Amino acid sequence: MHKINRINLEGHEMPTHWYNIVADMPNKPLPPLHPVTKKPVSPEDLAAIFPMGLIMQEASTERWIEIPEEVYDIYRIWRPTPLYRAYNLEKFLDTPAKIYYKYEGVSPAGSHKPNTAVPQAYYNAKQGIKYLTTETGAGQWGSSLAFACQYFDITCKVFMVRCSYDMKPYRRLMMQTWGAECIPSPSPYTRYGKEIYDQDNNHPGSLGIAISEAVEIAAERDDTNYTLGSVLNHVLLHQTIIGEEVKLQLNKEGIEPDVLIACCGGGSNLGGLILPFLPDKMDGKNIKMLAVEPSACPTLTKGEYTWDFGDGAHYTPLVKMYTLGNQFVPAPVHAGGLRYHGDSPIISQLHKEGIVDAVAYQQREVFDAAVLFARTEGIIPAPESAHAIKGAIDEAKRADEEGKEKTIIFCLSGHGHFDLASYQIYFEGKMEDYEMPDEIIKKNLAELPKRELVMHK
Amino acid sequence: MHKINRINLEGHEMPTHWYNIVADMPNKPLPPLHPVTKKPVSPEDLAAIFPMGLIMQEASTERWIEIPEEVYDIYRIWRPTPLYRAYNLEKFLDTPAKIYYKYEGVSPAGSHKPNTAVPQAYYNAKQGIKYLTTETGAGQWGSSLAFACQYFDITCKVFMVRCSYDMKPYRRLMMQTWGAECIPSPSPYTRYGKEIYDQDNNHPGSLGIAISEAVEIAAERDDTNYTLGSVLNHVLLHQTIIGEEVKLQLNKEGIEPDVLIACCGGGSNLGGLILPFLPDKMDGKNIKMLAVEPSACPTLTKGEYTWDFGDGAHYTPLVKMYTLGNQFVPAPVHAGGLRYHGDSPIISQLHKEGIVDAVAYQQREVFDAAVLFARTEGIIPAPESAHAIKGAIDEAKRADEEGKEKTIIFCLSGHGHFDLASYQIYFEGKMEDYEMPDEIIKKNLAELPKRELVMHK
Repeated sequence: MHKINRINLEGHEMPTHWYNIVADMPNKPLPPLHPVTKKPVSPEDLAAIFPMGLIMQEASTERWIEIPEEVYDIYRIWRPTPLYRAYNLEKFLDTPAKIYYKYEGVSPAGSHKPNTAVPQAYYNAKQGIKYLTTETGAGQWGSSLAFACQYFDITCKVFMVRCSYDMKPYRRLMMQTWGAECIPSPSPYTRYGKEIYDQDNNHPGSLGIAISEAVEIAAERDDTNYTLGSVLNHVLLHQTIIGEEVKLQLNKEGIEPDVLIACCGGGSNLGGLILPFLPDKMDGKNIKMLAVEPSACPTLTKGEYTWDFGDGAHYTPLVKMYTLGNQFVPAPVHAGGLRYHGDSPIISQLHKEGIVDAVAYQQREVFDAAVLFARTEGIIPAPESAHAIKGAIDEAKRADEEGKEKTIIFCLSGHGHFDLASYQIYFEGKMEDYEMPDEIIKKNLAELPKRELVMHK
Repeated sequence: MHKINRINLEGHEMPTHWYNIVADMPNKPLPPLHPVTKKPVSPEDLAAIFPMGLIMQEASTERWIEIPEEVYDIYRIWRPTPLYRAYNLEKFLDTPAKIYYKYEGVSPAGSHKPNTAVPQAYYNAKQGIKYLTTETGAGQWGSSLAFACQYFDITCKVFMVRCSYDMKPYRRLMMQTWGAECIPSPSPYTRYGKEIYDQDNNHPGSLGIAISEAVEIAAERDDTNYTLGSVLNHVLLHQTIIGEEVKLQLNKEGIEPDVLIACCGGGSNLGGLILPFLPDKMDGKNIKMLAVEPSACPTLTKGEYTWDFGDGAHYTPLVKMYTLGNQFVPAPVHAGGLRYHGDSPIISQLHKEGIVDAVAYQQREVFDAAVLFARTEGIIPAPESAHAIKGAIDEAKRADEEGKEKTIIFCLSGHGHFDLASYQIYFEGKMEDYEMPDEIIKKNLAELPKRELVMHK
């Protein structure tokens, strides 16, 4: 008998609806506030940059939202994704724990991001939008949106942080292959970008600047909208297909999870995995839900739960979330997708209420876990996803110490094919650890209200 | 109703045996000849560099050979692979043809190569082998063998053509991540390599030199064997799982193929796709089988069917195959995996007998097809695999002109995640076409017998 190391779903078993956690949260997440009036933003406020289909989802309290047929057909290119039993990793760890991982790297863009890029492009196309803007750091989100836009005759404009644009040509080329326009940020094409660009043509850029550039263009043009790859409620909604599939896959083998783990930048792959299991937890099942973040950007573990902007220029609404302050510049760790000062409001509230736990790791121990995983399970993980691997390994060790046999499931959100330069630095022993000193985080947070007053008095 | 764009097999539907075409060939392929005696090589001759398990497969006439459990379990990481209907490509081409593609890029190494790397590592490990050597050009085969070796506690040594080693660091890093030793060739670690290396420390290397280095070490050490990623009968045998799965997938939907297409370097992904369909063709079914090769290395379309060596140093046996001459140096086209002077003896014989057709394309038209495919079907193909796409597009057009509605199936043997530098050259309009002049091919072929006499008199 062969060991079952991969649990598949058949095509017809793929879920037909997204799960909206807001329907089942006893305390609903607080609505975002308008950056100037400080009153809850209205659908009309958001309509300048988002299509009505997504705005309705952002505020929806319906439990199940049907996946449109056009989106479903594209999902079927790579979904349902496999759930693996990590037999070889377990053997190496000599643990009685059962470790499973959901692998989202099988999508054409190589991560979970197309799960939301495709519906975002769809709802925008439905409303007649011809251009979508967004920002990207390492390029995971930008390439996913480029992939999605080509199915809906939308031209995708990606503002890519200039230092990444120069140093990571492969993801940029991926966007170009999929027909997108990729612009180094700061650029001379927006007011906010031009201000910075004119002072320094070689400014390395930041995610905060790139967001502001993408939002500015979308706000000013009728045929252009803006997209965000994480944080927002509708993004987490689209990602719930991950956890829904995991539930079906576990049911097939009669498996009950004890621990669910994902890396957490803005919170979308974490939310996608854990939210469908939340009703079970509220019904009394003992499921630990764990967010893993980098020590260099410890939003949940060291940030504060307060109102903050999503971007550095304060174009976006204020959201109630864990934040390190919108002027926080994280150290240049290799997990570019986890370098965000804030976090999803839904995940933030669940963490505040003690439902979601969090832990932070240094990048060298994360790469130790990544290489161990590649050499046991055969898949080279993205640095972001490797945070979840490290979390799973430590949870297995903890269970062993406690004499318990736990079932641990983590989300392997993407492959590392475009991150091998980071592996090289690791192999050469040149990788550094970064820990943001507490006093700098405090200083950033202390400045928060003052900055708001300065910007919007 | 959703359109079925992906035909899956369930895990338990994965074939349990490889199909050995030799059992069903009316004319068996001729055995290789010893390079010195010019008599058929014996199993004992081959035992210096191959394990008995593979030697027996190389000469086997049994129709079905069981996949060992240990190999089957590893196959299950990525197999069965999906078969896609290319609806969007068909729509773009405005063709009534039905185009399907079998996608082998879902393997952890990103191509079909692990289908044979895993059993090769397994049979070597079973015989107590601790080291495996091989050569690699662009790195597809080397990384696949590195992936496979880690499951069997084998140290993998890959001789990588030096110019690729320097210019393509990502596949080298992939091998390193999987624990392999990757050595630029020519190296100072072999007699043959040292001779060249001492004359020129910066010699760019060639596949012929790298093969000779890898064979030399394997021949001299008891604990070390050599592996080849294509050409040989046992390699094509292991790849037949591709075509077997395609047959099962087509049966599920009641589809009969009219045309089967794959790119052809050494012939392993082509053989893997077409060989399981050959009995149907011999039974009278009208199935066209098409090999697609680069104009820069037109082995089947312009080579000669004769006895030749597999390598430049003439360490290997003589095989009866289509060849451009073992001293042939193909132009530096981006499809590195198709730059081989010879071809599989099985494929060569089937081509000679008129069972397998062949066509050659220039690389710019191949990249046109690659980008069209990425923008319609969403997957960025390897340059090698893009040859098959170009072949499928032209077959669809030909059928349209003839007023026929054909069902065309091609093998998409790998993704292009490590080939984006080639896409960049294409986008910048700097890609060149190469056509080897007939007189140079003739000259190479004319030198063949003389060279043999000089080397082995």
